[in-house]
Amino acid sequence: MGRAQKMVTLDEITELCTRRGFFYQTGKIYGGLSGFYDYGPLGVDLMKNILDDWWWYFVERRDDIYGLSGSIITHPKVWEASGHVESFIDYIVVCQKCGTEYRADHLLEDLGVKVEQYTLEGIKTLLRSHNVRCPACGGELSEPRAFNLMFSTNLGPKKSPPFIVYLRPETAQLIFVNFKNVVFSMGATLPFGIAQYGKAFRNEISPRNFLFRLREFIQMEIEYFVNPKKLNDCPYFDEIKDIEINLLSAEDQEKGLEQARKIKVEDAVTSGLIGSEWHAYWIAESLRWLWRIGLSPQNLRVREHIKSELAHYAQQTFDVEYYFPYMGWKEIEGISNRTDFDLRRHQEHSGEPLHIVDDGEKVIPYVIEPSFGLERIILAVLTEAYTIEEKRTYLRLKPRIAPFKVAVFPLVKRDGLDTLARKIYNELRDRFRAYYDEDGSIGKRYAKADEIGVPFCVTVDGQTATDGTVTVRYRDTRQQVRVPREHLAELLHNGIEEKS
Amino acid sequence: MGRAQKMVTLDEITELCTRRGFFYQTGKIYGGLSGFYDYGPLGVDLMKNILDDWWWYFVERRDDIYGLSGSIITHPKVWEASGHVESFIDYIVVCQKCGTEYRADHLLEDLGVKVEQYTLEGIKTLLRSHNVRCPACGGELSEPRAFNLMFSTNLGPKKSPPFIVYLRPETAQLIFVNFKNVVFSMGATLPFGIAQYGKAFRNEISPRNFLFRLREFIQMEIEYFVNPKKLNDCPYFDEIKDIEINLLSAEDQEKGLEQARKIKVEDAVTSGLIGSEWHAYWIAESLRWLWRIGLSPQNLRVREHIKSELAHYAQQTFDVEYYFPYMGWKEIEGISNRTDFDLRRHQEHSGEPLHIVDDGEKVIPYVIEPSFGLERIILAVLTEAYTIEEKRTYLRLKPRIAPFKVAVFPLVKRDGLDTLARKIYNELRDRFRAYYDEDGSIGKRYAKADEIGVPFCVTVDGQTATDGTVTVRYRDTRQQVRVPREHLAELLHNGIEEKS
Repeated sequence: MGRAQKMVTLDEITELCTRRGFFYQTGKIYGGLSGFYDYGPLGVDLMKNILDDWWWYFVERRDDIYGLSGSIITHPKVWEASGHVESFIDYIVVCQKCGTEYRADHLLEDLGVKVEQYTLEGIKTLLRSHNVRCPACGGELSEPRAFNLMFSTNLGPKKSPPFIVYLRPETAQLIFVNFKNVVFSMGATLPFGIAQYGKAFRNEISPRNFLFRLREFIQMEIEYFVNPKKLNDCPYFDEIKDIEINLLSAEDQEKGLEQARKIKVEDAVTSGLIGSEWHAYWIAESLRWLWRIGLSPQNLRVREHIKSELAHYAQQTFDVEYYFPYMGWKEIEGISNRTDFDLRRHQEHSGEPLHIVDDGEKVIPYVIEPSFGLERIILAVLTEAYTIEEKRTYLRLKPRIAPFKVAVFPLVKRDGLDTLARKIYNELRDRFRAYYDEDGSIGKRYAKADEIGVPFCVTVDGQTATDGTVTVRYRDTRQQVRVPREHLAELLHNGIEEKS
Repeated sequence: MGRAQKMVTLDEITELCTRRGFFYQTGKIYGGLSGFYDYGPLGVDLMKNILDDWWWYFVERRDDIYGLSGSIITHPKVWEASGHVESFIDYIVVCQKCGTEYRADHLLEDLGVKVEQYTLEGIKTLLRSHNVRCPACGGELSEPRAFNLMFSTNLGPKKSPPFIVYLRPETAQLIFVNFKNVVFSMGATLPFGIAQYGKAFRNEISPRNFLFRLREFIQMEIEYFVNPKKLNDCPYFDEIKDIEINLLSAEDQEKGLEQARKIKVEDAVTSGLIGSEWHAYWIAESLRWLWRIGLSPQNLRVREHIKSELAHYAQQTFDVEYYFPYMGWKEIEGISNRTDFDLRRHQEHSGEPLHIVDDGEKVIPYVIEPSFGLERIILAVLTEAYTIEEKRTYLRLKPRIAPFKVAVFPLVKRDGLDTLARKIYNELRDRFRAYYDEDGSIGKRYAKADEIGVPFCVTVDGQTATDGTVTVRYRDTRQQVRVPREHLAELLHNGIEEKS
């Protein structure tokens, strides 16, 4: 199960996803739209299973987190207050010869140049001092220009001046502007969180790597509000303090180290590497959920942002990175301490008081924000699950997120076996996402089930008619066992809900 | 339960929704954005329950429908082919005196003028012949101008010419352009359907009536593909043929009749009122699901579009209308026979063959499309559920869609009753969406539970500690029964899954 063994490529994953109905590039019959994908039938199931599990884990099973689902088109003042209108920009250069457009920082990074100052002047200086030219044709590059990554559109029929609104570039701000609403209608008291998932949009200059850098994607975000005086007063800290994480601190990175160190959560807080108990709690809790849906601890690390990476709103940020064999370590989640920046800004810009009373005092809470990228997590899950064996390729997906939990086959399509198999299928379908397959040979049906990650296959044969037993075949081991029909539901239930 | 009794107003529903956390107008602290709402904590649960039930009913429990989830930002050629770039328009007039903008057809309808020809010339003629003036100030109106309802935005950093893309105004087209993908990757054969839910966007000139006319909303759509020769060959027809529906035909409307007639589905097909078995099947199946989530048959009618209403792609369309006591009959779902219009157009515009082989012949299938508007259905469900009794107001939501299934209270907050109640709550929470409440009097807790539609309240009192029984209070009847703790889960399970 080590990384070295599998060596799956991004092309293999992309090919499987398209062929088996996980993802299709949008508008493909019209040449496609770069950075946009449609979820196919299996992709929708995978998406729903991950979203539902996230919602259960972070919202439904807790008492302190409320759900929300904000609109996508958003009031422009939200993004003025948040700083996105001013700061959510990348720098573009255009090749004067071939016309290709590039993100200036990507060009610099590809040349091994570290971008310390992400400003127009900083970028300009670096491009000049390293004499950067077009990597495609060697042509001269234009001066960099700032480009805001928010998509905008015009609201209502007025021609001039148009009322410009934005497609949200993150779901987080919808939570901040509803902070007071949730406090009022739910009677929320500190500490508490608001969770939301949904689409976000960024007009990326160069979308790439299949699901990794998209222009339209799904975020799953929690804003967790804490009294700033109580950042080290997390009642759940005991639950997670002994968890070991792979931590790469900003300090180590500044020393040029690239290897994460294994450290207990508690020690990371005590030594000051993680700023507070609550921040550490959300890092650990995020990891626990990522393990739960099938990512291995050794393929996950927690990397602190170095100073030059820190967003304008953040005091400290950690990325949870996944090791993609074909791309290296890449962010799939960020966990920031956003301080009281956002609530304070919205209070200033709107004139609405956005405090809450805690211990008899008016408080503008601090915010710890775990922010997950769904498609990146899906790519990680598929990468981890993609298993190449000598004689077969299969998706070792956790049963709880597998699109189909069970497939039912008749061994052959005669002697009434198909009727019997359909009957068993109909019984199972009420409780488990299932499909029935009688096409081609049994071997081909297993191969298809393996490729789409079905954890259990049930085969109905002559013996079934006689003694009521069926064959259950386990995806990962290919082990086959005979079980009485009436035990099937329990066996599947236990197999899907397995611990770890 | 008749309509006359309740007489709930839209204001009452809006007030409850805001106060109790179902919906908040988006960006309210910045003055709000007209036509956009955020789902609050209870709204998200209600939304998820309805979407999940829809998905289960129309996708998971069937073998012939595949799921999909397309991107929101869509290739412009999709909307050129579909006819939306050319035809998805409304006509605007502006008051020359006060500057208010109106939809010309709404102005005409408010004056009782029927708009037969929805074209610029048709509208112009009617405005002139009826001498229509500004209803606000009596001022003169401008000439009407066409306004496309699609939101557009620019993709990528290119300044000129910008690459204009559209936010999908319906989810349906994403299904048509993926038709071939689903056929290939899932091996789909006729008849089959593709289902999708998700956001759609329309730049409405005058959004209004709370959730009824929004600019951003969720559609739940099925495109069901049938061999055009087999429109009267529906294998499920027997299941629904005896269902009685309230049908208002185009013919009756053209005679000036406004009252729907009760008719059996089979008779509606035989008499030619509904064009085909498959069309009738999807009407009946839609009604069955709407009943399932709590809308009464007597508050639903099926109204055929008259000729002038028919969309450019439709051969015959029926609206499922709900009787809102404060607005009258209004559409919550449309069920169209879109023929092969869309697939044929996309085939022409893309050059990709979009047929499928059926009975050895290449066929471009016909499409029956049930298209549901989630927020309108939510408004109908809330309207139906809002019950005013002498001493209380409560939401009589079907347990299966109620945001919370159960609330657990300690009778008083002492003698260890709160600890015991929390314990029982923790057990239930694993299986049912639940909340714990110990604030204020028990009466206040019941009142809150009633207002948010919690079907079952469990109260823990002194007797619980002694004999292990709790009190279950039923929302609709206010009946209270004592049950042993260990029977609670089964009682709730049965109460939620009740038939009808």
